[in-house]
Parts: sequence; C-alpha cells; structure tokens
Amino acid sequence: MTSQSVPKISPLSNFRVVLCQTSHPGNIGSAARAMKTMGITQLYLVNPAQFPDAHATALSTGAADLLENAIVCTSLDEALTGCAYAIGLSARKRQLSHELVNTRVAASKAVEIANNQPVALVFGTEMSGLSNAELDRCQLLAMIPANPEYSSLNLAAAVQVMCYELRMAALENADLTPDITDKINELATLESVEGFYTHLEETLLHIGYLNPAAPKKLMERIRRIFARIRLEKEEVNLLRGILTLTVTPRKHDKY
Amino acid sequence: MTSQSVPKISPLSNFRVVLCQTSHPGNIGSAARAMKTMGITQLYLVNPAQFPDAHATALSTGAADLLENAIVCTSLDEALTGCAYAIGLSARKRQLSHELVNTRVAASKAVEIANNQPVALVFGTEMSGLSNAELDRCQLLAMIPANPEYSSLNLAAAVQVMCYELRMAALENADLTPDITDKINELATLESVEGFYTHLEETLLHIGYLNPAAPKKLMERIRRIFARIRLEKEEVNLLRGILTLTVTPRKHDKY
Repeated sequence: MTSQSVPKISPLSNFRVVLCQTSHPGNIGSAARAMKTMGITQLYLVNPAQFPDAHATALSTGAADLLENAIVCTSLDEALTGCAYAIGLSARKRQLSHELVNTRVAASKAVEIANNQPVALVFGTEMSGLSNAELDRCQLLAMIPANPEYSSLNLAAAVQVMCYELRMAALENADLTPDITDKINELATLESVEGFYTHLEETLLHIGYLNPAAPKKLMERIRRIFARIRLEKEEVNLLRGILTLTVTPRKHDKY
Repeated sequence: MTSQSVPKISPLSNFRVVLCQTSHPGNIGSAARAMKTMGITQLYLVNPAQFPDAHATALSTGAADLLENAIVCTSLDEALTGCAYAIGLSARKRQLSHELVNTRVAASKAVEIANNQPVALVFGTEMSGLSNAELDRCQLLAMIPANPEYSSLNLAAAVQVMCYELRMAALENADLTPDITDKINELATLESVEGFYTHLEETLLHIGYLNPAAPKKLMERIRRIFARIRLEKEEVNLLRGILTLTVTPRKHDKY
C-alpha cells in the first residue's frame, strides 16, 4: 500500500491512548508500536512506574517518536483534559454498571465523536485493569470479547485490538475502504469464457474423457468449477493454450 | 462475560495458526497467549529458530499448554496437512496478485469454511513475512489495513488481530443460528490439491506446454487460477481424470 493511495483519516488524529499506572516500561514501548501501526499517535501516561526507559524505547522500534512526544500526567483527570469522551477498556464485567459494549461497537461510537472532538481510550494496569475511580471518569466501558476461560490479553495486545477497531471504523466511516487491490486485471468477456468451454468440450471428447453420446452432464460439473471464479482475459488465453497442446503436443526440443 | 453466556463456538476449534521460521522464541510465546485469549489453540511451528525455549514459555503466561501441544514441522506442507483452506497474512501488497482481502473479510470466509473443515492461518518471519513459495500454498492473502507510513506490527500483535477477527466472526456467525446453508460439499484437502498441481505440472511438461528448464512461472499463474476456486474433493478427482487421459487418451469406442 502506498501512502498516496490512502486518504487522510482525520478522526484517528483525535484519539489519545491513556495508560494508567503501567508497571512494565516494555509494555509502554509495545503499546506505542501498536498505536502507530494503526495511525494513532497521542500517548498519555498516568503515573508510569518507570518512564522514560531504554526497554520501552527498544520495544517501540519505529514508534520511538510517540514515546518522545508522550505526555506524562499525575492524574487521569489531567490526561483527559480537552477530551469530549473517554472509553475505558476492561477485560471483565464490572460491578459498576457502566454502559458496556464490545470493542467494535465502542470503536464505531468513538469514531463518530472523534470526527469533531478528542476521544480518550483508557487502559488500566497490567495486573488489575482500571480501578473503579478511574472507570468513573469514563463514559463507556468497552470489552474485548475474549475467551472466558483465558481472557488475559497483554496490555499492548489490548491496545492493538482497540486501535485496530478504531482504524477499521475510521476507514469505514470515510467510506474509503483501504485500496489494497491496486490494479485489477481485465476480466474475460462472457463470450470468451464460452469459447473456452467449447474448446474444452472438444478437447475432452478428443481424449475420450466425455461420452460423445452424452457430454452434457460432465460439462456441467466442469462449468461449475470455473464459474466460481471470474476468469481474467489472460487466463482464458493460458487455458486455451493448454487445450491446443493437449490435442497437438509440442516437442520439448522446440524450446 | 461468563462461560455460560457464550455459545459453543465450534469453528474456532478448527483453526490452526502456522508460524513459519520464527526467529525469536519470545514471539512464539506471545503468539500463543494471543491465540488462547481468542479461543484458538492449535499452534504449528515450521522450522522455528529455537523451540522449545524458556523465553517462549515465560511470555506465553497462561497459554503454556499451547506450547506444550505445539506441532513442530519441517515444511509448510506438513503443517497444512488436513486443512481445506490456508490464509496467508501479509503486511504489504505482493507482486503475485493472490486474492487479497482485509483481515475482516478473510475472517468471515475462514469461519464459513471452519464450520466444517480445518483452516490454517499462515504467518511468515518477523523480518520479511511469507516467501512467495509459502504464499503459493495459500488460497487467500489477508492484510491488516495498517498505517502505510508504519505498518510493522509485531508478529504476536498480528496474530492477536487475526484471531480477534476470527473470534468476532465466529460469535457473529453463532448469532445467526438458522441453518440455511444446506449441505456443503466436502472441500479437497490442501495436500490433494497439491497432488493435483504436481499431476498437472507433469502433464503440461508432457504435452510441451511448460518449458522444462523453467516451469515455475507458468505454474504460478495456473495456481493463481485454482487458488481462487476452492476445489471440492470430487472435483480434484474429476480434474485428475482429465489429466490422466491427456497423457493416455482413451479410444471413443470404449463407450
């Protein structure tokens, strides 16, 4: 994918990721990398155990710029300054009955708001997630619908999933699905596909595969195979080349 | 979410994650953890640089059982044995235009097939992804629509995103309980499709279609055609029947 082919996705620039009381600096680096791969760049750190840190930088690989620009805060309120909406991420249901949605639904809501105003994604500690006091600062609780028998996503993995959903929602929102299929090869016309079927039938009669008295049934099964794909123009030529040589083999020494 | 509230998600048990030539054992451990959080448990390792390994086990945390049950293979073909479909993950566009879709579309297709037969998700090395030879073994190429300016997801992060999408698709699928798809014909296993390719290559050499000095290029184009069709078991038999008669035609009067 070239950068030219992708439209500017403005809501993504309105997101900030807030990591609360992160214990392991390596997780901050991995989270920064995860964010940047999805086009989200604003990182806020509330009372990190250790930051800046060489291990964080090492794990961020090409996203060291996010660490350099990270804003270290002493309270969640400080990190949320200027935001219109805050979404708390949780691996489990909570007693406090916040509005709870899955990450996909949350991303869709978040992008809608981020079209106009800043939105925060708030992640708790590696061990215990968000405290109830922290959750109280959030308007929505989002949950990754993980395996109930083992729902322990690594912090950076949770950041990756949420940021991925934000990017997918932003792309959908922009109604500009990423242009991953660049040039599309020319499809064969239906009449040239029919020409191929005729050629194939003649060839199969020639080699004795079809019963000349009743060739239809097998031809229907063969049509069913090729009908499932849209053959390209060049592919029809390729297949007909094979058929021609099936009837009149070429000597190898012609090469 | 309690286990009672979650329906039995059978397609997830039909997925295997195949990691090719992984350099860092820690990534194997992190990938195992990512898989298990999404309810996917079958891990195949093709020529890992180092395995088993203490660092892998440490990073797998509660998913050490996946490492214990991981199957180490010496070739991708071996890892794909028994699968009906293989999806290659790629961070970038490739020259050979496989059918290329984003991870969400890929997950939806994958779950549809995994309702009945095993499906593989194939990941390349940390540095360079899948080789073209490895991609040739896949029917579909899936891409995470990452930031074009920095698309370098960590291997385990890519596994996390893909497995998350599979789980989301499976949950969605399970919601639509009415079984409106009547009988689905059994797909051919990947090894039987490979058997067909070998048979086809021999036949094309026999009739002089392929240059014996360089058969690969045309075979890649032909693989691209059949990769788009998900061949059924009976269809592989039918096509191989044609190949047999191409080499040794049957007299018409045998009917």
